[in-house]
Amino acid sequence: MSTFGKLFRVTTYGESHCKGVGAIVDGVPPGMELTEADIQPQLSRRRPGQSKLTTPRDEKDKVTIMSGTEFGVSLGTPIGIQVPNLDQRPHDYSETDVFPRPSHADYTYLKKYGLKASSGGGRASARETIGRVAAGAIAEKYLRLAHGVEIVAFTSSVGKVNMPFINDLHENDDVKPEFYEFLNTISREQVDQDITRCPHPKTAEDIKELITRKAEEHDSIGGTVTCVIRNCPIGLGEPCFDKLEALLAHAMLSIPATKGFEFGSGFSGTTMSGFQHNDAFITKADGRLGTATNHSGGVQGGISNGENIYFRVAFKPAATISRDQQTTSYDGVSGTLSTRGRHDPSVVPRAVPIVEAMAALVIIDACLQQDAREASMSRLPAINIHHSLQGKAPKK
Amino acid sequence: MSTFGKLFRVTTYGESHCKGVGAIVDGVPPGMELTEADIQPQLSRRRPGQSKLTTPRDEKDKVTIMSGTEFGVSLGTPIGIQVPNLDQRPHDYSETDVFPRPSHADYTYLKKYGLKASSGGGRASARETIGRVAAGAIAEKYLRLAHGVEIVAFTSSVGKVNMPFINDLHENDDVKPEFYEFLNTISREQVDQDITRCPHPKTAEDIKELITRKAEEHDSIGGTVTCVIRNCPIGLGEPCFDKLEALLAHAMLSIPATKGFEFGSGFSGTTMSGFQHNDAFITKADGRLGTATNHSGGVQGGISNGENIYFRVAFKPAATISRDQQTTSYDGVSGTLSTRGRHDPSVVPRAVPIVEAMAALVIIDACLQQDAREASMSRLPAINIHHSLQGKAPKK
Amino acid sequence: MSTFGKLFRVTTYGESHCKGVGAIVDGVPPGMELTEADIQPQLSRRRPGQSKLTTPRDEKDKVTIMSGTEFGVSLGTPIGIQVPNLDQRPHDYSETDVFPRPSHADYTYLKKYGLKASSGGGRASARETIGRVAAGAIAEKYLRLAHGVEIVAFTSSVGKVNMPFINDLHENDDVKPEFYEFLNTISREQVDQDITRCPHPKTAEDIKELITRKAEEHDSIGGTVTCVIRNCPIGLGEPCFDKLEALLAHAMLSIPATKGFEFGSGFSGTTMSGFQHNDAFITKADGRLGTATNHSGGVQGGISNGENIYFRVAFKPAATISRDQQTTSYDGVSGTLSTRGRHDPSVVPRAVPIVEAMAALVIIDACLQQDAREASMSRLPAINIHHSLQGKAPKK
Amino acid sequence: MSTFGKLFRVTTYGESHCKGVGAIVDGVPPGMELTEADIQPQLSRRRPGQSKLTTPRDEKDKVTIMSGTEFGVSLGTPIGIQVPNLDQRPHDYSETDVFPRPSHADYTYLKKYGLKASSGGGRASARETIGRVAAGAIAEKYLRLAHGVEIVAFTSSVGKVNMPFINDLHENDDVKPEFYEFLNTISREQVDQDITRCPHPKTAEDIKELITRKAEEHDSIGGTVTCVIRNCPIGLGEPCFDKLEALLAHAMLSIPATKGFEFGSGFSGTTMSGFQHNDAFITKADGRLGTATNHSGGVQGGISNGENIYFRVAFKPAATISRDQQTTSYDGVSGTLSTRGRHDPSVVPRAVPIVEAMAALVIIDACLQQDAREASMSRLPAINIHHSLQGKAPKK
Repeated sequence: MSTFGKLFRVTTYGESHCKGVGAIVDGVPPGMELTEADIQPQLSRRRPGQSKLTTPRDEKDKVTIMSGTEFGVSLGTPIGIQVPNLDQRPHDYSETDVFPRPSHADYTYLKKYGLKASSGGGRASARETIGRVAAGAIAEKYLRLAHGVEIVAFTSSVGKVNMPFINDLHENDDVKPEFYEFLNTISREQVDQDITRCPHPKTAEDIKELITRKAEEHDSIGGTVTCVIRNCPIGLGEPCFDKLEALLAHAMLSIPATKGFEFGSGFSGTTMSGFQHNDAFITKADGRLGTATNHSGGVQGGISNGENIYFRVAFKPAATISRDQQTTSYDGVSGTLSTRGRHDPSVVPRAVPIVEAMAALVIIDACLQQDAREASMSRLPAINIHHSLQGKAPKK
Repeated sequence: MSTFGKLFRVTTYGESHCKGVGAIVDGVPPGMELTEADIQPQLSRRRPGQSKLTTPRDEKDKVTIMSGTEFGVSLGTPIGIQVPNLDQRPHDYSETDVFPRPSHADYTYLKKYGLKASSGGGRASARETIGRVAAGAIAEKYLRLAHGVEIVAFTSSVGKVNMPFINDLHENDDVKPEFYEFLNTISREQVDQDITRCPHPKTAEDIKELITRKAEEHDSIGGTVTCVIRNCPIGLGEPCFDKLEALLAHAMLSIPATKGFEFGSGFSGTTMSGFQHNDAFITKADGRLGTATNHSGGVQGGISNGENIYFRVAFKPAATISRDQQTTSYDGVSGTLSTRGRHDPSVVPRAVPIVEAMAALVIIDACLQQDAREASMSRLPAINIHHSLQGKAPKK
Repeated sequence: MSTFGKLFRVTTYGESHCKGVGAIVDGVPPGMELTEADIQPQLSRRRPGQSKLTTPRDEKDKVTIMSGTEFGVSLGTPIGIQVPNLDQRPHDYSETDVFPRPSHADYTYLKKYGLKASSGGGRASARETIGRVAAGAIAEKYLRLAHGVEIVAFTSSVGKVNMPFINDLHENDDVKPEFYEFLNTISREQVDQDITRCPHPKTAEDIKELITRKAEEHDSIGGTVTCVIRNCPIGLGEPCFDKLEALLAHAMLSIPATKGFEFGSGFSGTTMSGFQHNDAFITKADGRLGTATNHSGGVQGGISNGENIYFRVAFKPAATISRDQQTTSYDGVSGTLSTRGRHDPSVVPRAVPIVEAMAALVIIDACLQQDAREASMSRLPAINIHHSLQGKAPKK
Repeated sequence: MSTFGKLFRVTTYGESHCKGVGAIVDGVPPGMELTEADIQPQLSRRRPGQSKLTTPRDEKDKVTIMSGTEFGVSLGTPIGIQVPNLDQRPHDYSETDVFPRPSHADYTYLKKYGLKASSGGGRASARETIGRVAAGAIAEKYLRLAHGVEIVAFTSSVGKVNMPFINDLHENDDVKPEFYEFLNTISREQVDQDITRCPHPKTAEDIKELITRKAEEHDSIGGTVTCVIRNCPIGLGEPCFDKLEALLAHAMLSIPATKGFEFGSGFSGTTMSGFQHNDAFITKADGRLGTATNHSGGVQGGISNGENIYFRVAFKPAATISRDQQTTSYDGVSGTLSTRGRHDPSVVPRAVPIVEAMAALVIIDACLQQDAREASMSRLPAINIHHSLQGKAPKK
């Protein structure tokens, strides 16, 4: 389905070689200043051709807001978003008329729909993510203005090159304190200081070297993106099926080329004992209840608890490579597929703004649902409620 | 939200200490033999008290079908399912009136809803999963009868004790062939031969020892559940937002105590090169197109490709432990929380049927959506379609 | 689909001869006092056997709240509702194994599902409405407490016997002022003073006579129910597809035996000129902007405007009659169907609480969605907005 | 909400004075020939300025398909549709900065969203319907090709001028046989022979005279549109909440300016007795079971039965008139509003293709859902089913 969200709803259209791609963003809060200038920066961060590390096609993704604003202010009505397709070049791919590209969507699209786009799995193209990123930029602006939410994603590994204290989460089988501190302060500006979007300079150098080598080998390499959401309101997430982590997982695994999602302690947390893993409550500097550690990743029982939400997303190596591959045609004839297009040796740096966008879409939708609940509760008359429903000791 | 699915829809109700838990299952295909005997086995596998390794509360989860069948056949109308709550014992938990239990949902439920169940985060209880498992059993029966689908989950690790060739996926940085073979043959009967639901006897022994030690320490331990779906129809999953892996991730992360999800090569796949990771096409023994390897995990471009779907789910150590914990009360007063209830030292073995149930719910719903598409296509008149939309060479 | 609503969601199950009927009500605001005593009265008003004018089957619909409350207060979690089926009597209907009953759902259920309940179209039974009425009672309580909303429906006609100034809307081709006044004051108590639920005594007498005659003729008769919603918050309804009147129409036409819906001036309004039909704005006694007339029926542009919402629903004569009918069997053999059950000569009086329930479900769901919007707007920083977006004259 | 449908989903954007209006149509069956030429005709029928009877603004609604087709064939991916706004003229409306126009959406939009479009209720504009009509044209093409469905709407009354045997449904209190016959044969070509879209020449003359008079009076007049759906597959509609008539009512009441909906015998049916109203089954010429009369309007128990579906929609007189109106400003100051724009004296003729479009959207979505059910049933193994579930006599 091409729609995501319940109250803040994004619907997208478009594949690689049609007239354009776009989205309709429904449920945008009215009365917010909004122009193309709020959207373009994230689209530009997503764009290929930002450096020799990413694909050189300069798609010039110029966004137009078609509707839903007047005089630069959101009306609360659907915002139509459009980006034309300029660089179509369908002839790059002609051999794929005969061979389904390995680990691409060509074969599955053909089986699912009975036919496929001439480019292969048209909607499986990274170009489909433009609509998400545009919608995410709108969501992010609202979250920042209304709640002070900050969402920062970054490249945490490429191949086996990992940032320290990230993938190697454990020291004495536990998260390192400097990781928590890092999550508190990392900024999008820091992330963008290097083309790899890895904010640890030494690791960034190693990643660049690795990606360059893969490009020379006409090969590709995967990696992980880690994301933190700061200042997330407490109470987001809709049990039991729409727990906040379930929605984030859904959102992240809907991004092309993803293979996994973990939040908080993640897979490493499975090796810890409950006594060690439990996040004890403490009184924070501002007087509110918080937790001393954050193995929970900011979510407990499917509901945000006010701590930083952090998660990691796995991206496989891009399936499009410029090396010959032994494979089999649609007709069952084995042969060699040679694709010579210009391709990303690693999608990971470009995936960073897409991860941020999808995170923003999840959070704003959860905010609106919790806003409805809190407003509805606030209108009820006060009643006597049993102490054990309120986290209180019985009166003596 | 308490509803999951689009055409095959499950809605659940119930917490630990109310009159009962249950579900309404809407969209069940009519004309299928269905009685309580189809549902009870998976509920019994989910039930605590199956051995000393799991919590000794014998809840006797006896299911009743309230509606939607007559003479033992499904009518196509909603199936009401009900399981009464017998063992309520609210007094086990009285200290938690004052202290939110660390890494539980008590605090977040109170913040979200303005009040909480007396037992803490009532719907965050494992008891909530009864409705899912019952619904999943119905879905599984349909999938087996209609498509020959087989879904088998098993304990793949507890703490640092891993089954060989599972978590240690790589040999020469690649999946071991015996893992693929294992996925082809593992059965639910094999899984149930050991109380740990780990089908590798040596590992099962080590896991038992580890869980027993944790029980003695009044502590808990996490682990992972791996699941394979065999004979899944080709073409399932609804791009772009409802890719099959996104729906599976959503489903799995909605299970209590989960921290991560990966499918196919998963996080390990991020370290591979594209050339190595790409699954070359081959002609299978039955003549259809398949892939030589299966790093994709049975899904490409968000759509099932006919290969085995496999994924792994991370479970944290249970938050409920019988050890004193230093923490802070709802009122901000630090102190010691002592909980003495009888608790699972590891939820992993019991999570196995829940993972299977959620997988079945995802697959049946995707089947119904693809059924609609295929049926709608089949009614259109045949037309000339450009060769490159069909995976064919141009005619000369 | 057996679910209604977006944020306040009702899912129902059950047919005539299964173990019971029920509902899950999701999205109930937490912190509201709620017990069976809040639900039972509307169920009893819906119940057959209230007098000789309605069917004598005394179903004793006793409701149980299964979940979602503790100590008599709503937790915000799903409320499971259950009513057992007592009086099943499947043998009343045995001839209908061979003949589809005319204008019943027997034939269409068989064609849709490939099989049908033994009672015919099981879910088309009026018994299915129990879940709606129970859920509606919860919604109504919230609306009354939180917004002072009052919903009153009544029998406005049976056969050709109409209340004056209702169906005969026009005098000088316009609504009579006494109709507006009547809508301001009519109460549920007044409605229940007569078994017909027609609050105009003379008309009620004529209706009783008509229904009694139809009962003697072993026939049935249709009618209309008119409903007013007072004190509805301004701003409800979600254009463009979920205009408030569209949701009300959907809700009403989902009630068994309905044939039409009109709101405000309705079909009569089609004969008026725009100049006459337009509701001029005036300043009301309380200082707020309102309208002098209310042809709009409280909704403009799909959004409630604060005036009374009123609408009328058409109910056909009940299809179940105890007269012989010439018809044709499932196998295509013509013959005579004789049904001798005890049946309602008119469903109209019993439909009154069902109309109220469905209205409440629409309004509460629209309230929650508008609550989300208003809360989300209120968090944005104040900005300069062009005067013409605000209904203001330009500054000079 | 700006999305309609479940499997065939339409999402629209755009108001009067933004850059354009459009839609995303998701769930279109793949493999269908589709170009702008399939869509443009219905858009042109919807367009104002078709004659002096309708508003003279020539908007030249030229549609572009942005995505979802290649080589003139649908891919099964979302179809982006776009129509630019050419004639914006915002200055026509400047007085409405101060006065909310009576019975328009200006006031309610301002209250709902906290601000409004400069043109008033931007999305309440008839221009919003372009996206629906475009989507409906795609749906219609599919329904015609796949099922032979024919949808024809027409003007059945304007003001008090009614087509004979339509609004005056009863003779001896019953539908006239010529009405059934008329529904069997009326074609879109016949409807378009007159600018009023009333296919009864004498009535069309009277309507023209009435509309011309209203135009001279700078006033407007309402009317009704009747619609028939022929060859609708049996089994459509999803009880209990998504009965086919409920979906049609929802769809129709979401069209601007509608006040009512009735299907089959409608409000007139409330005056009939059950014996008269029941549609006896007969064997049709083609051997299948049908009904002798069709008071049910082609739907029984919320499910289509194969007979013609017919319904009537009430449209109020257009609120925009060029006469001075006494009313009150946003600030509560009474005064005179003079609007001098060029306006439709009757929206009814232009509403005809909108009614057809919304009908098509309902039917195709119901088809896809029933396709899923039938396909899922067909895969189950044959079993013995009790005779009374199958409409059969017990075996002796």
